[in-house]
Amino acid sequence: MRVLLVGATGLLGTEIRRILEPQHEVITASRKGSDVSVDLSDKASIVAMFGAAGRIGAVVCVGGAAKFAPLDALGDDDYAFSLANKLMGQVNLVRCAIGHVDEGGSVTLTSGTLAQQPTVGGAAVSIVNAGVEGFARAAALELEGKLRVNVVSPGWVSETLASMGQDPSRGIAAADVARVYKRAIDEPITGQTLPAAKT
Amino acid sequence: MRVLLVGATGLLGTEIRRILEPQHEVITASRKGSDVSVDLSDKASIVAMFGAAGRIGAVVCVGGAAKFAPLDALGDDDYAFSLANKLMGQVNLVRCAIGHVDEGGSVTLTSGTLAQQPTVGGAAVSIVNAGVEGFARAAALELEGKLRVNVVSPGWVSETLASMGQDPSRGIAAADVARVYKRAIDEPITGQTLPAAKT
Repeated sequence: MRVLLVGATGLLGTEIRRILEPQHEVITASRKGSDVSVDLSDKASIVAMFGAAGRIGAVVCVGGAAKFAPLDALGDDDYAFSLANKLMGQVNLVRCAIGHVDEGGSVTLTSGTLAQQPTVGGAAVSIVNAGVEGFARAAALELEGKLRVNVVSPGWVSETLASMGQDPSRGIAAADVARVYKRAIDEPITGQTLPAAKT
Repeated sequence: MRVLLVGATGLLGTEIRRILEPQHEVITASRKGSDVSVDLSDKASIVAMFGAAGRIGAVVCVGGAAKFAPLDALGDDDYAFSLANKLMGQVNLVRCAIGHVDEGGSVTLTSGTLAQQPTVGGAAVSIVNAGVEGFARAAALELEGKLRVNVVSPGWVSETLASMGQDPSRGIAAADVARVYKRAIDEPITGQTLPAAKT
């Protein structure tokens, strides 16, 4: 299957690529340095990406940014940036995927545990992550039989914790998160939010 | 206590006002025809509303619109409208309430069951409702001890169903929904999403 991987150059993107490549042809997408370039905050750029990628069987998105900052430091621009990028970027990815993904294929988006478990500094991220999950449930219902839509909700990743000088054993290994994305591609599920956190 | 009620002229606003007035001074707010006027999609208008309302003990918001339409009929403008109105309008209401609400006072926002239970036509509404709930959890955590932030999630309301020619017994009476808003004002809770649906 041809899998379009958006956010291919990041930590999780690299692991997802590694786990998919034995079975699938992975078309990488990111702002630069990938097979196709995309700016998630720009819908025209998403349309162009699908045009360049050709017919695909699955889309995985681990791209999309949102601003992490305390409530009293989050400005109007920070909310606008977060909503345009990780939230509407992923919403538009689903909207634009229609017609480019084979019937029964899938789009897998990314939220994060802040959707349900708040933390200081996470107000904008919580909006975005919860919004992505809400959209995926609704879109999956309307697209049933045509396109599967799921979300992976990663917790803290061990490698990220280590790079911050924190205890990596508190997190989940990037390779284990990648396996959850693979499940969303392989299994006949839709409208699901799959947790990928240290249990 | 002085309670600022945003969306005071609607079905739920009218019931909430009725249930609060024996105990509280209710300052009504809506686009027009209330004590103070407000356009939730315009942050400057929210700032002006708090200036006009004076010192308050609680804010309740049952205003805020989002577009209900099938996925293939929802355009870019519909998402932008929904995010600017019911989502960022309520986020900005909390941001702007800080400093105008007495310590330990509350802001109570409105989501809806589409946050968790999708329905055809509800994609934009699901984003908004889930996003409001995610924000409230996060904001409540950061504002603990200063301002309580909760959400009421109404299901179908009997009076609304009746006005649509549908069976009202499938829904919850507006007066029962209003009682849930009153709980959010009266009880020492924060970061909660309180369901108000037919059980």
